[in-house]
Amino acid sequence: MFESAEIGHVIAKETYDAEVPALREALLDAQYELHEQAGRQIIVLINGIEGAGKGETVKLLNEWMDPRYIEVRTFDRQTDEELAHPTAWRYWRQLPAKGRMGVFFGNWYSQMIQGRVHGNFKDAVLDQAINGAERLEKMLCDEGALIFKFWFHLSKKQMKTRLKMLKDDPLHSWRISPLDWQQSKTYDKFVRFGERVLRRTSRDYAPWHVIEGMDPYYRSLTVGRLLLEGMQAALKAPKVEATSLTLGPLAANHGEFTLLDSLDMTLSLDKSDYEEQLITEQARLSGNIRDKRMQRHALVAVFEGNDAAGKGGAIRRVAAALDPRHYNIVPIAAPSEDERAQPYLWRFWRQIPARSKFTIFDRSWYGRVLVERVEGFCSQADWSRAYSEINDFEEQLTEAGVVVVKFWLAIDQDTQLERFEAREKIPFKRYKITEDDWRNRKKWPAYREAVGDMVDRTSTEIAPWTLIEANDKRWARVKVLRTLNEALEAAFARDKKK
Amino acid sequence: MFESAEIGHVIAKETYDAEVPALREALLDAQYELHEQAGRQIIVLINGIEGAGKGETVKLLNEWMDPRYIEVRTFDRQTDEELAHPTAWRYWRQLPAKGRMGVFFGNWYSQMIQGRVHGNFKDAVLDQAINGAERLEKMLCDEGALIFKFWFHLSKKQMKTRLKMLKDDPLHSWRISPLDWQQSKTYDKFVRFGERVLRRTSRDYAPWHVIEGMDPYYRSLTVGRLLLEGMQAALKAPKVEATSLTLGPLAANHGEFTLLDSLDMTLSLDKSDYEEQLITEQARLSGNIRDKRMQRHALVAVFEGNDAAGKGGAIRRVAAALDPRHYNIVPIAAPSEDERAQPYLWRFWRQIPARSKFTIFDRSWYGRVLVERVEGFCSQADWSRAYSEINDFEEQLTEAGVVVVKFWLAIDQDTQLERFEAREKIPFKRYKITEDDWRNRKKWPAYREAVGDMVDRTSTEIAPWTLIEANDKRWARVKVLRTLNEALEAAFARDKKK
Repeated sequence: MFESAEIGHVIAKETYDAEVPALREALLDAQYELHEQAGRQIIVLINGIEGAGKGETVKLLNEWMDPRYIEVRTFDRQTDEELAHPTAWRYWRQLPAKGRMGVFFGNWYSQMIQGRVHGNFKDAVLDQAINGAERLEKMLCDEGALIFKFWFHLSKKQMKTRLKMLKDDPLHSWRISPLDWQQSKTYDKFVRFGERVLRRTSRDYAPWHVIEGMDPYYRSLTVGRLLLEGMQAALKAPKVEATSLTLGPLAANHGEFTLLDSLDMTLSLDKSDYEEQLITEQARLSGNIRDKRMQRHALVAVFEGNDAAGKGGAIRRVAAALDPRHYNIVPIAAPSEDERAQPYLWRFWRQIPARSKFTIFDRSWYGRVLVERVEGFCSQADWSRAYSEINDFEEQLTEAGVVVVKFWLAIDQDTQLERFEAREKIPFKRYKITEDDWRNRKKWPAYREAVGDMVDRTSTEIAPWTLIEANDKRWARVKVLRTLNEALEAAFARDKKK
Repeated sequence: MFESAEIGHVIAKETYDAEVPALREALLDAQYELHEQAGRQIIVLINGIEGAGKGETVKLLNEWMDPRYIEVRTFDRQTDEELAHPTAWRYWRQLPAKGRMGVFFGNWYSQMIQGRVHGNFKDAVLDQAINGAERLEKMLCDEGALIFKFWFHLSKKQMKTRLKMLKDDPLHSWRISPLDWQQSKTYDKFVRFGERVLRRTSRDYAPWHVIEGMDPYYRSLTVGRLLLEGMQAALKAPKVEATSLTLGPLAANHGEFTLLDSLDMTLSLDKSDYEEQLITEQARLSGNIRDKRMQRHALVAVFEGNDAAGKGGAIRRVAAALDPRHYNIVPIAAPSEDERAQPYLWRFWRQIPARSKFTIFDRSWYGRVLVERVEGFCSQADWSRAYSEINDFEEQLTEAGVVVVKFWLAIDQDTQLERFEAREKIPFKRYKITEDDWRNRKKWPAYREAVGDMVDRTSTEIAPWTLIEANDKRWARVKVLRTLNEALEAAFARDKKK
């Protein structure tokens, strides 16, 4: 697979000098035009053999293009903060905004290849990492990102020659890091596992380009031309609708009888039971959150539900049990300007708690498959692919020890009407009821269908939905608290088993 | 994910009786029409909980539709023959032809879920199997197959009730196998790993349908309607062009200097060296093929090359070394009628040797990215996706111990001209040269490009290409034999390491 990049490609200085001015101008034009359109973020992944000119090429790109719109990111050792979050978090927070270019030096690929080379894991785990990368890139591209993947290559012989050359040159010898010498020993493995990774992750929407790295003129001109071609093609192409989607299975439901119908909406608690149970569960939660086993976990609670189902009240009862330093409530409304310049899930990734912390989402990433679907705020392709993107997202959270608890607070239509009318009558509750609420109410059947699909497709063993019968607020609040406690205690118990 | 299929879906007998006649008629119509069009094969995968009515539903489908066009396949224990071939071979050989329906009872999914439930492997290996299934189904759908995936579901309580019911009924108690009772013990694991599998493999082009299995009217009608919907949609939809392709990385090649240019075409052997080396290598091959370590392997040799490059002569020198019972030569010409009714790779899968055997392909599956690409016999999407389909195919071979050796016999244009002219002059060689050969010769640059892409994208660590400098036939023949020997001996050496 690398054979063609070991045959000694060379470009003469005269050719190079003749071509560069036009190339630079065209690159600048494309860069500005993409920045103007602001619809797409450009991600350049730099990988390959040490000594093959990666650093020099990136330096050159910054000279050729406008560096104000380029962010070069290196990913070396993880910081403390990064270690306290799921693995993917460090990449999400470094994503360039739409209209900008991020050059990722060291990235998910370098991490997985190094891990395999050093025997930290076997092929099966490497393949898992490969699939994770594939899903990440598919999502980014479906969101409009433009991904370039460059593998700078040298044959083993070329690599040794080049390292020797650099070493003997006092002006450049500082460039050789201990890592370089180490790689000259692991070259064979590095190339073998690199090939496996490239073979499986070169997709039509995000292909790998292998660049022979020996000759600086050749490699610079080649990378420049490939970037230009890709950027120009993106400027011409309309946004492509996502295809080949993972959807999550759907329970066949030809009987019109759905999961929501199967709830017993008469469940309730009388006042004294409520008060007793509430206090018990709050104390239990307070203990769980302060438990030292919590240091291996974080807690994420998602609150979704019908309008007037009592999300706010339930959240307050949860918060009441806790020290404000331990939790954070994130109300989800319209996205900010920064958030609109990023893939959909970015705004949620940035709110993911560090280990031992608790984040409560008042509405959440499920907006895409609820309100955005029903109101037509996004295309069918967009909300369809969201199910599996969300499953992936939650899987990444749970794999890092985050406990994800998701509540749907369900009330029936009569109860909603009563509460709407009550709100309109009580002055200090009037702010809670708007025209939107009445409008949404008319779409009850559409929301019902959306909720059914959502639960079918995203209630997973790792992050199940809990449906809360919320006609009775007391019942609902206690069930929410109890579910949180059970989820945390189950996670603690699983730790013990390991 | 299964919650909606545990709520007690029921359809009344009257509704069922009223609906079935029209459903049957529509199913028959759709079946005949798809058979007429003959463009698509229908694959129905049956999985799920024991006792959920899988067998009864399949029986019913055979009654509702025309059973002459339905093949029900069960995959229990592997046969001796299946064990001697790569794992996927058993599924390939059972594929229904285009225009027919294959119902796969037990299939790649049951195999992977059972394996995981019984602890034969961990999640990472399960994920590898999941990805294998995904790639297989993507390929089948890109080839026009229509895949239905049904998961028949029961809650744990429902399952136990149903098993008890069957047991107490003398007419049905025979239906309960030891496997059923076993599954009632492994229910939780089975559902947990089943969910992981369904979540990751439900794609827009091959979605999973979860069917609540308790009520026979409900499950039968639901499956019938889903099949009908899917078949009718397929009849309406034009064949969709494949998207989201894995391509394999491409070495950037802006210098017009390719791998083929880097060959030393002057390499040659004089007659006496040739005779000595030929005999040595033939003896070595004969020994290797009869070596008892060969019992863990099979050998596949692919011969591709320029016209008149000497493929036939080289193959004869290989065969001359061997007992005809040990090898099989497969010349690849136009596909047969049976072969045209199957996915592209089917005709090669059927020729894959059992363990300890050797198959020589005189031209091969690479036809798709060579002649079919250059001559426009298939669409760009079809040959583009072939690279990764071929890589997957060869990976499945090598994982099963098959040693895959691929030769490109390269000659230069002058040598080809000489040989063409010589062939026209010698009467007994005249059959070897046709108008086609002269026509192909005019497309030299297009073939050159196709060969370059092919080597870049399919020369893998597990199945590398060997480029043979074939201007000198002696050199070429000896290099072919030596490469085969080295590949076998390397495989034997790897066995020892394990």
